[in-house]
Amino acid sequence: MTRPSTAIAQVDQFHAIAIGRLAYQLASEGRSIIHMEYGQPSTGAPARAIALAHEVLDREPGGYWENPALKQRIARHYQESYGVTVDPEGVILTCGGSPALVLALSSLFAPGARVALARPGYVAYRNTLKALYLEPVEIACGPAERYQLTAAALEALEPAPDGVIVASPANPTGTVIAPDELAAIAEVCQRRGIRIISDEIYHGLTYGTPAHSVLEHAGDALILNSFSKYYSMTGWRLGWLLVPPALIDVARARMGNLFLTPPVLAQHAGLAAFDCEEELQGHLRSYARNRELLLAALPRLGLERIAPPDGAFYVWADIAHLTQDSLDFCRRLLEDTGVATAPGVDFDPVEGGHFIRFSFAVSTVEIEDAIERMVPWFASQAQHTA
Amino acid sequence: MTRPSTAIAQVDQFHAIAIGRLAYQLASEGRSIIHMEYGQPSTGAPARAIALAHEVLDREPGGYWENPALKQRIARHYQESYGVTVDPEGVILTCGGSPALVLALSSLFAPGARVALARPGYVAYRNTLKALYLEPVEIACGPAERYQLTAAALEALEPAPDGVIVASPANPTGTVIAPDELAAIAEVCQRRGIRIISDEIYHGLTYGTPAHSVLEHAGDALILNSFSKYYSMTGWRLGWLLVPPALIDVARARMGNLFLTPPVLAQHAGLAAFDCEEELQGHLRSYARNRELLLAALPRLGLERIAPPDGAFYVWADIAHLTQDSLDFCRRLLEDTGVATAPGVDFDPVEGGHFIRFSFAVSTVEIEDAIERMVPWFASQAQHTA
Repeated sequence: MTRPSTAIAQVDQFHAIAIGRLAYQLASEGRSIIHMEYGQPSTGAPARAIALAHEVLDREPGGYWENPALKQRIARHYQESYGVTVDPEGVILTCGGSPALVLALSSLFAPGARVALARPGYVAYRNTLKALYLEPVEIACGPAERYQLTAAALEALEPAPDGVIVASPANPTGTVIAPDELAAIAEVCQRRGIRIISDEIYHGLTYGTPAHSVLEHAGDALILNSFSKYYSMTGWRLGWLLVPPALIDVARARMGNLFLTPPVLAQHAGLAAFDCEEELQGHLRSYARNRELLLAALPRLGLERIAPPDGAFYVWADIAHLTQDSLDFCRRLLEDTGVATAPGVDFDPVEGGHFIRFSFAVSTVEIEDAIERMVPWFASQAQHTA
Repeated sequence: MTRPSTAIAQVDQFHAIAIGRLAYQLASEGRSIIHMEYGQPSTGAPARAIALAHEVLDREPGGYWENPALKQRIARHYQESYGVTVDPEGVILTCGGSPALVLALSSLFAPGARVALARPGYVAYRNTLKALYLEPVEIACGPAERYQLTAAALEALEPAPDGVIVASPANPTGTVIAPDELAAIAEVCQRRGIRIISDEIYHGLTYGTPAHSVLEHAGDALILNSFSKYYSMTGWRLGWLLVPPALIDVARARMGNLFLTPPVLAQHAGLAAFDCEEELQGHLRSYARNRELLLAALPRLGLERIAPPDGAFYVWADIAHLTQDSLDFCRRLLEDTGVATAPGVDFDPVEGGHFIRFSFAVSTVEIEDAIERMVPWFASQAQHTA
């Protein structure tokens, strides 16, 4: 007889994964599927990154290794893109953005610490906090705030939280925090002693002015980034956490014990990806076209309450006139049309029952096809619920 | 003014990493270095795994993906190697063995839980427990117990711990728990309600009879493994955690939120590696030769108190007659001879000041060279301390 295990934190499933599994099952049955459920480019790594990976495959046995040149190149990126100087030793290479968040939270907080975040927000923020026994302090953000945190909302929290997760451009909305507001958030956090973790994974993917780094305003912020979005290298599992000098030893010790090192091939290929601007800007132009097509089509879908997608590759749309059960809605949309999307419940446990997230990081042909499939289906739903 | 951050768990640095850094620095200055400090094969992935990776690089964009065929192949491996049936859904693919341990501990325990482990043991066990606010309950294991946990030691713990980490073959000693003892450990754990996490990362690397899986005796044990040791794919970052049916949803939810998925190329190449027995057995024969050479040379080094290395690719030797500061000792050995080794302090915070770990997962030529360099140096040390 084993006794009952210690009560562990409840961590929710990713419902988009269930949609994705159903999508792959339908595809295996011969159905034509358009994958708009996951936040990943449908393109592969840049050609020069792939070419270098071929070379390295034949050249090096590989082992536990951190690429010093990549750390230096990432540090240079902060100088070039944001005008801030960072120590390459403060760049911790990780197996993608997700473990970088675990590393950041583990390096800053002990169980019981309170960490603020926007609702809606990326599902793993809330769940990773819970898995580490940190308390998520969700700040409801609606259309008036462009679904984003504000300095005023952080100012109003009593008591001040121990930390805050900032995401701009955000998932699931794609909204960007304006530079003035970002500076005001940094000021509130410094004054109230709130540690900032800034998830900048969608930087590079903006459709107006480039996004600013929190690091421009808060030198002791922890910055997450990854090669999974702009650099189109999702399956390579490479990201980084940037930590301030005082945290380098703490974060490195955790990295070495909890994760060791990221994949060798990815660390070579990622360095090459920094020299592939032309190809990557081509992807961005393709997302921009897809975004225009999708935004133009939304009225035909009857969707009018959406977040302004300044960046990333998402549209977050209110479907309250059609359903209060977004998971069921996404499942039926997929089964009837072959278009896979992410249910709002993943991103907002309170309001998410009447939201849907479309990822437009697919080809333009697929976006056009998806719109044509969805228009009559959304019309039928509207009729059904009218 | 930021206020002091919440007190976080103290996690030690890996001292072998400091030795490794010094070794690479000396190499960059033109010194001839033999790397016996890290537990990684000096060989690369099997040729067929590399060939498949080339193919996949040109074929697939890659993304968030779990290879269902790999999960099935791993499940089959348990049937073939240990005669136990496992559900492929219970195989969680991870970015190496380290995050598999984080996943296992997070899926079983809440902060404050007590987890037993052998001392000496792999440094990341203790540090990962501490980072997750679990309490390491170290059981001192000496030569009489072949540096391994015993059923009697687990029986004697009061109160019973919530869990235990079993490692056979073990790091840093290479010792194997005999089948009868393993069965007795499983029986004590079942009776006392102690959850078992078994790190079987060195399975396949034994120099007598093959190691047994804890799963043969305890169906609800969590099993860690990886492609980093026997499969010679360290830098690919691929491992797995095997969980019992009741924990599949809990572990999958944590995997999706904390880590997402492992590298795509590694998941393809890892499947191919299962069909490369001839090449991998060749590596094992090379380790066996290295082991014989090193064991034969130990008396010439004046090292007589060692653990019997039944498996893995380590020799754990007592150097109490030479030093009580193993980190300084390893640094001087490296500086004087170019042979990099791991200091005992990583593996045993109490007795490790007078132990050293040699990894013999290098080429036979390097082992011969290392012995010739070390013999006179150890003699000079003995003279110096005499």
